[in-house]
Amino acid sequence: MALVVQKYGGTSVADPDRIKAVADHVAFTRNHGNDVVVVVSAMGKSTDNLISLANAVSSVQPGREMDMLLTAGERISMSLLCIALAGIGVEAVEVKGDRVRDALSSGKVVVVAGFQGVSTDSEVTTLGRGGSDTTAVALAAALGADVCEIYTDVTGVFTADPRIVPQARKLARLQFDEMLEMAGVGSKVLALRSVEFARNHNVPIHVRSSFTWEHGTWVADEASEGGPSMEDPIISGVVQDASESKVTVIAVPDRPGISAALFENLANANINVDMIVQNTSKDGLTDISFTVPKADMRTAEDIVARVAGEIGAQAVTHDADIAKVSLVGAGMKTSPGIAAKMFRVLADNNVNIHMISTSTIRVSVVIALADMETAVRALHTAFGLDSGTAYSAPLPERK
Amino acid sequence: MALVVQKYGGTSVADPDRIKAVADHVAFTRNHGNDVVVVVSAMGKSTDNLISLANAVSSVQPGREMDMLLTAGERISMSLLCIALAGIGVEAVEVKGDRVRDALSSGKVVVVAGFQGVSTDSEVTTLGRGGSDTTAVALAAALGADVCEIYTDVTGVFTADPRIVPQARKLARLQFDEMLEMAGVGSKVLALRSVEFARNHNVPIHVRSSFTWEHGTWVADEASEGGPSMEDPIISGVVQDASESKVTVIAVPDRPGISAALFENLANANINVDMIVQNTSKDGLTDISFTVPKADMRTAEDIVARVAGEIGAQAVTHDADIAKVSLVGAGMKTSPGIAAKMFRVLADNNVNIHMISTSTIRVSVVIALADMETAVRALHTAFGLDSGTAYSAPLPERK
Repeated sequence: MALVVQKYGGTSVADPDRIKAVADHVAFTRNHGNDVVVVVSAMGKSTDNLISLANAVSSVQPGREMDMLLTAGERISMSLLCIALAGIGVEAVEVKGDRVRDALSSGKVVVVAGFQGVSTDSEVTTLGRGGSDTTAVALAAALGADVCEIYTDVTGVFTADPRIVPQARKLARLQFDEMLEMAGVGSKVLALRSVEFARNHNVPIHVRSSFTWEHGTWVADEASEGGPSMEDPIISGVVQDASESKVTVIAVPDRPGISAALFENLANANINVDMIVQNTSKDGLTDISFTVPKADMRTAEDIVARVAGEIGAQAVTHDADIAKVSLVGAGMKTSPGIAAKMFRVLADNNVNIHMISTSTIRVSVVIALADMETAVRALHTAFGLDSGTAYSAPLPERK
Repeated sequence: MALVVQKYGGTSVADPDRIKAVADHVAFTRNHGNDVVVVVSAMGKSTDNLISLANAVSSVQPGREMDMLLTAGERISMSLLCIALAGIGVEAVEVKGDRVRDALSSGKVVVVAGFQGVSTDSEVTTLGRGGSDTTAVALAAALGADVCEIYTDVTGVFTADPRIVPQARKLARLQFDEMLEMAGVGSKVLALRSVEFARNHNVPIHVRSSFTWEHGTWVADEASEGGPSMEDPIISGVVQDASESKVTVIAVPDRPGISAALFENLANANINVDMIVQNTSKDGLTDISFTVPKADMRTAEDIVARVAGEIGAQAVTHDADIAKVSLVGAGMKTSPGIAAKMFRVLADNNVNIHMISTSTIRVSVVIALADMETAVRALHTAFGLDSGTAYSAPLPERK
């Protein structure tokens, strides 16, 4: 008998039929002899609707009241799931805080609200958008669960976004670090914090869909292997992200403290600067380019315009029509030349590279938004992700 | 400085603009130096929507889960009202249970959920539909409030339903007993239980609309007067109710225990029998007619058919096309002949009377549904309710 934590997102509980399907999944897991803890999000777009209502009544939104408001959406899906479970004869109970173990030991399915937490003074708090993934993983870690199943609106993690690459394949397994890199560069399947938490506490995650019974993608490290294996595919996936804009500060005097002044001011405004490129200095002047989320663009513009004046820069330009495309794969560590091959593929497809950043298991480039889909498709094909078997570097010759 | 309990129903908080208007009403009351406790219902039809969702997921609906589900709607309106109050600089706090006094004494507006209660073992419970009126009155009684303001979608209690009688007038004041009779015979303005509670604890109710700033109707007893006053209008209003059906059991043997058998069985099924008429016996047989809510009609039919067979009745007939029309007025106690005048007015308008029931301050008749509007209008005019001054019986001649 295993202990299974299951998290169902908004699309999984979007209407009564979906909630009944979730109840069937829970009952199936339960009837196979497992203890089940269920974490549910608010139905469909109901959290967005509540936020719109709050925006419509006031621009002043006290945190405590907003928390009460937003958690009401999850209370509704929790209650409806318990009612649906009662309808098929499964005893379930809504629980908060530390009563989960007690409820489990009394033989019940335990239902917990997703992005609801309770602060030390018993007020309702929330973990922020996407927080229910983290709630589920944290709960699985605390309970020593055998697996945390994250039910979402896709059937797993894919080698690329199937809307762009129809021949993208579902990955059977991924390492925590690969999933972390994918979430970091724009994959929406799992919230970044939940993957960090799962890696740090070694909680295996099974990403799957409540719309089917098929298996999804396992995110876990295989501890027995001890390090990278030759069986790891070199490239696990291609991820695109069109949510950032590029800012360029032109003809900045190239002296110490200039970039500090710029980036400290952005950091103080909680603006997340992603990639930074500084051109080679010419005549004591240089250009600095960086990317920020489009949502923060207006605030960033004001700050950059002010700082640019203070540091004597010549001009500031913005470009919203950019996209970041990343290759992620644990096998890169042991396989050199991936970046070079990537740049060659892009060049062959007439895709110009604006910016580059890398980690040990990732290569990201910033390109024109208009080139994004071409680049994703070309890379997916060139790295062998289209076919049944993933790309492998040629084996070193026998000596 | 007074303590005011204000209750806002679903239509008063149906959308963001309405919630902002409610916040303005609360702020106005507060800014005139009053302590304010606000009881809010769920937005518009949201409770109905939640019930539909529950029906769609399961026919088994555990009480505790249904309570959690339905109170979520009120949590949303409470939170949005607090946010709207914050937007206009009024400090407010959502409170449950016994923390109301503490919160009031810290100078805050206190916001309480309407039909939410908490049972002794800390589970959320509900008071049933229309319960928020009762919550507000009970809270006003417990706190010793000066008034309980019930904000609804009409501007007060009227001499008749304005949809039927366009010249109906808003009543400035009503006695508890009059309001009780009106609620009992079909007026929807206040829930019957809330009026009973207000009378028993002598809590003045001010029924008014959150859509305007005008005064509504005061429901209270004027203790200083000690009994009925000559200033009481004889008739305060005409109330119609088309929610009942009539059942007639034909040719019942007229012997003891027959009606007991019939009505005990209906009572055991929680069916509320309203008016009962038993015809004069003829050849040892009699007919028994009674009215029940249309909603209970199917259950009632099964029971009556069974009992009719057991007691040897000849037949059972049903008539859904009936209406009850009632005249209510505290002045009736000291003014004889009201019923006679009512029957004359109906006869003059060719309205046939099927059943009659009376109390000391009310006369009700059951008539054909097709005659309902004619009867209401004719009575409203005949008893002087159309004009600025209500009907008065001729003063007794001076001796």
